[in-house]
Amino acid sequence: MNKNRLEAFSDGVLAIIITIMILEIKAPEESSFESLKPLIPALLSYVLSFAYIGIYWNNHHHMFQVVKKINGSILWSNMFLLFWLSLIPFGTSWIGEHHFAAVPMSIYGFILFMAAISYTILQNKIIKLEGPDSILQKAVEKDIKGKISATCYILAIPLAFVSPWISGLLYITVALLWIIPDARIEKQINKI
Amino acid sequence: MNKNRLEAFSDGVLAIIITIMILEIKAPEESSFESLKPLIPALLSYVLSFAYIGIYWNNHHHMFQVVKKINGSILWSNMFLLFWLSLIPFGTSWIGEHHFAAVPMSIYGFILFMAAISYTILQNKIIKLEGPDSILQKAVEKDIKGKISATCYILAIPLAFVSPWISGLLYITVALLWIIPDARIEKQINKI
Amino acid sequence: MNKNRLEAFSDGVLAIIITIMILEIKAPEESSFESLKPLIPALLSYVLSFAYIGIYWNNHHHMFQVVKKINGSILWSNMFLLFWLSLIPFGTSWIGEHHFAAVPMSIYGFILFMAAISYTILQNKIIKLEGPDSILQKAVEKDIKGKISATCYILAIPLAFVSPWISGLLYITVALLWIIPDARIEKQINKI
Amino acid sequence: MNKNRLEAFSDGVLAIIITIMILEIKAPEESSFESLKPLIPALLSYVLSFAYIGIYWNNHHHMFQVVKKINGSILWSNMFLLFWLSLIPFGTSWIGEHHFAAVPMSIYGFILFMAAISYTILQNKIIKLEGPDSILQKAVEKDIKGKISATCYILAIPLAFVSPWISGLLYITVALLWIIPDARIEKQINKI
Repeated sequence: MNKNRLEAFSDGVLAIIITIMILEIKAPEESSFESLKPLIPALLSYVLSFAYIGIYWNNHHHMFQVVKKINGSILWSNMFLLFWLSLIPFGTSWIGEHHFAAVPMSIYGFILFMAAISYTILQNKIIKLEGPDSILQKAVEKDIKGKISATCYILAIPLAFVSPWISGLLYITVALLWIIPDARIEKQINKI
Repeated sequence: MNKNRLEAFSDGVLAIIITIMILEIKAPEESSFESLKPLIPALLSYVLSFAYIGIYWNNHHHMFQVVKKINGSILWSNMFLLFWLSLIPFGTSWIGEHHFAAVPMSIYGFILFMAAISYTILQNKIIKLEGPDSILQKAVEKDIKGKISATCYILAIPLAFVSPWISGLLYITVALLWIIPDARIEKQINKI
Repeated sequence: MNKNRLEAFSDGVLAIIITIMILEIKAPEESSFESLKPLIPALLSYVLSFAYIGIYWNNHHHMFQVVKKINGSILWSNMFLLFWLSLIPFGTSWIGEHHFAAVPMSIYGFILFMAAISYTILQNKIIKLEGPDSILQKAVEKDIKGKISATCYILAIPLAFVSPWISGLLYITVALLWIIPDARIEKQINKI
Repeated sequence: MNKNRLEAFSDGVLAIIITIMILEIKAPEESSFESLKPLIPALLSYVLSFAYIGIYWNNHHHMFQVVKKINGSILWSNMFLLFWLSLIPFGTSWIGEHHFAAVPMSIYGFILFMAAISYTILQNKIIKLEGPDSILQKAVEKDIKGKISATCYILAIPLAFVSPWISGLLYITVALLWIIPDARIEKQINKI
């Protein structure tokens, strides 16, 4: 089974997710600089979510480069990942409109956590099919970044009720951690 | 005639259908957990429709893997299928906003039924072009899943007026039936 | 210069145009069959525009199959075509919301006319580059369908003020004329 | 690392940006010619932004034709470019709704300026990877067009407060400058 269409479909969904979020940022009623001020939370949440979708696209791209074959179970794991990512625009507009209030920040973390879990499931399904000697297996052997991210999300969900800013900092930290492109896979590829 | 562009265009349309449905789920006015409660029907209907579009993409993907050539009549059958699938976001938001009331549930079933019919037409056009010895012909010989689905939809349309929950259960049953990827085609491919 | 990305980009734009129109058909406020009635004009205009975008995708697909090379002038002609097609959702929602009133019907015809002109310009640019012996040149030699369509649009624009139904009939006639896939190009390809 | 998916993803994002802007132009409440009048600013700003996205797609297409390999830093520079381009629909609807008022025109220029800077960064990252003898390096050696554009944007941002029409003229000038497809790269390719 061919991986090209899975990549193309995922690219399509990610491209739409990354783009439609801007539809939620309505042009201000007035034409002054001050009228931009109330949009700042929406803009910040857009930047954060744009970065996250960018990260997922990037990692998805890296991961599928080493994939040779796919099967039905990989197709559905990928769909499950796309489902959770598709909820990001909802989370984004909620945290933006409510200035990063506790409950929306917590739910946003939950969506990110579920996306991370789905990504790990997808990764494991691929490794299972490719075999223990696959490049991907070696590349993500310890998956430290993945574990740190999941831990940050788990912490951020309840900590939003202590202070939403802690959660916000955790989300930004994870994003920065990943914006450094996944050198692990690149390294393994270069070894060959 | 080349099948790649037909696949790419269908992927584009399906990617958009699956993604824009989230635009209908507006972030709540308040920032409490309770404010999420009224969104539950919309979320559930989104999950169902997401699964259906996923199923169609999956089966479309499987089916076109064994397609070698296409013609004008296949192009238009595919467009007819995309038309009915494009109505799913409408049906989804209607059943979600009206908590799975009878008429919306019935109409939702009608849209699913028409999509199923279009898919069968497309399948038959492909078999006609590929010939009776084609892999697809063997793979869908009895098409039991297809027939069960169509029957469920036909039942669900009037039964929504007895109880919309019966229709709901039927839609979920059909979805689960298909989420198991179309092993029939995979089996035939592996035989070769 | 490679034609693949031009095809992919056009497919993307057409896929979005065909899909976002459904966002304009809002789920009814009530959950009765009668509440669907006011949506009928919107649905009909959606069907018509869906068919038109389908036709353009189909013909674009056929035309680019015989294209071997492209240049900057073809890129911009294609962009000009996409611009006019991108106005179709606007025209569609206007004619739907105003039950096919004269002015919207006339403007809708103007958009279709400009799209047809752009398509002809694109076709001519391709023929110019491919040379007078190109398959495309032979396929569209007389371009009777193209001329009939343009004439129908020109008639429909003023006739909307006599009766919008005349324009409507003309738009439907042109659509039906084209839904028969462009046998001309297929014929020329088969000759080789 | 393969450039195809980066191209496909960028095409997807650009296709959506170019298309969703039309969603902001709502069909008029009435069905008269006069009711189109208030839409003229929105339509004009749509035409301008459509041209800009078209230009970026065109140049992106030209640039990546000469790219042989990509790396993580190119992926992220591309994402940074897409981010600024994704803000164009916001700017477009703001300048349209406020009839090209000073602040929106200035912000629109800022978005265009940031997009231009991102494009230059992307270009430099590619040249760095491809080496000083690359086709791209030769093609954009002096990058006069790029420098004129950046200068125009820098001028347009403050000049909007003298008169928004000056900024408007500057944006149109830059657009026209680029609609002439990037002959520089085509020339270098033809030399080989």
